This record gives sequence, C-alpha cells and structure tokens, in this order.
Amino acid sequence: MKFCSACGQGVELKIPPGDHLPRHVCTQCGEIHYFNPKVIAGCIPEWEDGRILMCKRNIEPRLGKWTFPAGFLELNETSGQGAAREAKEESQAEVEITGLLSVINVPYVSQIYVVHRARLLRPEFGPTNESAEVRLMREDEIPWDEIAFPTIFHSLKFFFADRAQGIQGFHELDLTKRLLRPE
Amino acid sequence: MKFCSACGQGVELKIPPGDHLPRHVCTQCGEIHYFNPKVIAGCIPEWEDGRILMCKRNIEPRLGKWTFPAGFLELNETSGQGAAREAKEESQAEVEITGLLSVINVPYVSQIYVVHRARLLRPEFGPTNESAEVRLMREDEIPWDEIAFPTIFHSLKFFFADRAQGIQGFHELDLTKRLLRPE
Repeated sequence: MKFCSACGQGVELKIPPGDHLPRHVCTQCGEIHYFNPKVIAGCIPEWEDGRILMCKRNIEPRLGKWTFPAGFLELNETSGQGAAREAKEESQAEVEITGLLSVINVPYVSQIYVVHRARLLRPEFGPTNESAEVRLMREDEIPWDEIAFPTIFHSLKFFFADRAQGIQGFHELDLTKRLLRPE
Repeated sequence: MKFCSACGQGVELKIPPGDHLPRHVCTQCGEIHYFNPKVIAGCIPEWEDGRILMCKRNIEPRLGKWTFPAGFLELNETSGQGAAREAKEESQAEVEITGLLSVINVPYVSQIYVVHRARLLRPEFGPTNESAEVRLMREDEIPWDEIAFPTIFHSLKFFFADRAQGIQGFHELDLTKRLLRPE
C-alpha cells in the first residue's frame, strides 16, 4: 500500500497510539489501514459410492495439481456457504455441506483453511475456468504426489482416516513450515 | 474505498473478467482490490481451580460488557498465537493454548471466530487499555446478561457444557441473525 484508499494521499508505516504493530497510516486524513489473514473455505464432496470430487487446477499457483474445491471466503458468507460456492465455481457441482472437518493455520502465507465435509447432490460436474479436469476418485486413485497444497493433502488424510474408523472427527493443525507433505 | 492504494487514482466498482462479484478496480493502473472476512482469535483461559479469566471491555463496541480475550488475527500468526497475544494485551495474562473449542461464522459482520481452550499459567493479570477490569470467575459468577457478543456467549456455553461432561469437544456454529443470546 502506497496511497490512502480513503483520500488518495500518501501513507506511512507507523505504530498508531495504543497499537503494537506498524500500520499504514494516511499522512493527510489519518486513516489507519489494516491487513489481516484471509480465510480459505473448502469442502470434500463425497458421492454416494464413497468417491470424492477432485479438481485439476487450471490456474496458477500450482497449475495442473489436484485439489478439492476451495477458495477465498467472501464478505457476508459463512465458511459453509463459501465452500459450496467454490464447489459450484470450480467444478459445476451442487453440494450440501454436512460438517466441519479441519481448521488449518498457514501463517507463512497469512491464511486459515476451514474445510468442510460435503455431500455431492448429483453426479453432475465438469471442467471450468479454474479446473482443467474434474473427477470422482476412490481413495486409491488420489494422486498424493500431485496435490496442490499441504492443507489439501492433510485434509484429505484426515478425511480418509476418519472414514476408515467410521467417525466424523474434527482436526486442527498449524503448518509452520513450507512443506508440501508431512515429514 | 475511493482511491487505489497502489497508485492513488480513483477506483470504480465492476466485475473483473472471470469473477462473479463487483470489486474495486483502479481506473488508471487496473489493480483489483479485494475485501474479505476477518478472523477473530480468542481463548478461554482456565486457572487450576476451574475459574476462567474474563475481561470487562474498556473500549467500544460493547463498552462495559464482559468477554474472554479475543481480537483480530494479525498477518503471519496462527489462531492460537493470536489468541495468546490477545490474552496478554487485554488482561496481562500468560496463557498456554490447549485446543480448539469453537468456530463461529458471523456473516452479517463478515467475521469468523476461532476460539481456543487455554491454561492460565500464573494467577497474574490485571486491567489494560482494553479491559477496565479482569477477573477469574466460577461458572455461577458469569454475567450471562452482560456478555459482549453472541460468539462469546455461545463459546462459554460450549465450554461449560463440555466440562460438565468431562469432554473437550469441538463446536461449529453459524450465527445468521443479530441476536445477543440464543432464542
């Protein structure tokens, strides 16, 4: 940020009174501008035969890698609504959100993933601007070496481990190092 | 937002190609500016006798009402780190985060609360700029009619209900109406 979004004049970095971190403060109107982490809402849509819906990314970053539907939460949305919207946008799929699977902090990119379990309502889906290919996959078909992000990798592992035990657990995880897969 | 924070020129609201919502787009440099929900990180610090740490707000909104420590997550923080920082800032308390208690969507203010269980490490705490009074409270001392926000109210209810059962559950909730207390 170089200019104040309220008045268009220059900003400077300084710690406002009573604050503890430098903020972008307008040199003219005094407006303080905050930047905060973003929420990624996602879901793992499961069809009635147990296969899950996976998307091959058609956009950067991680073009060509696989993910379940997930994207930035929008204003005035719940994480479940955001996850269902992303499923529609990325895979043309209609889903019903059924519960929370995982919350994963990714502080090195200032993101927090909120990943839901979901039911695929109809076996209708297909490619979109964001996904070159959309497929239903059995667990043994998941391309573990071609998963787009560690948050996706871990959430899938949580999902299948729970299902093997017949439970619907909740999982929290902090990713503090840039690793694509667990050590 | 009226001006581009990258170049200082005017912005207009329009839907960028491939997008689905109007964004603030710079009329000069073309920069697209996104606004997204914010994460509130909080914790319920429990002392070894079972009392929990509560703060009487010294700032608006809800000045004079009671809350546990919670505030906006900062860049490059995990929700646990943010919750522990807020405990220090709001109550001078040192806490250890022990697990996730609740995730509460509040779409009407574009917020998502991520609330943790915590252990108060020492019985040392006190008022701050943000808290006029800080107290350890037994469950029967909680001022249920004077709680600052519905997210705080519900998280406290989850906490005590779990403890009565001897469990450490995880709870998700979407607050879709502006209510201070459950109906």
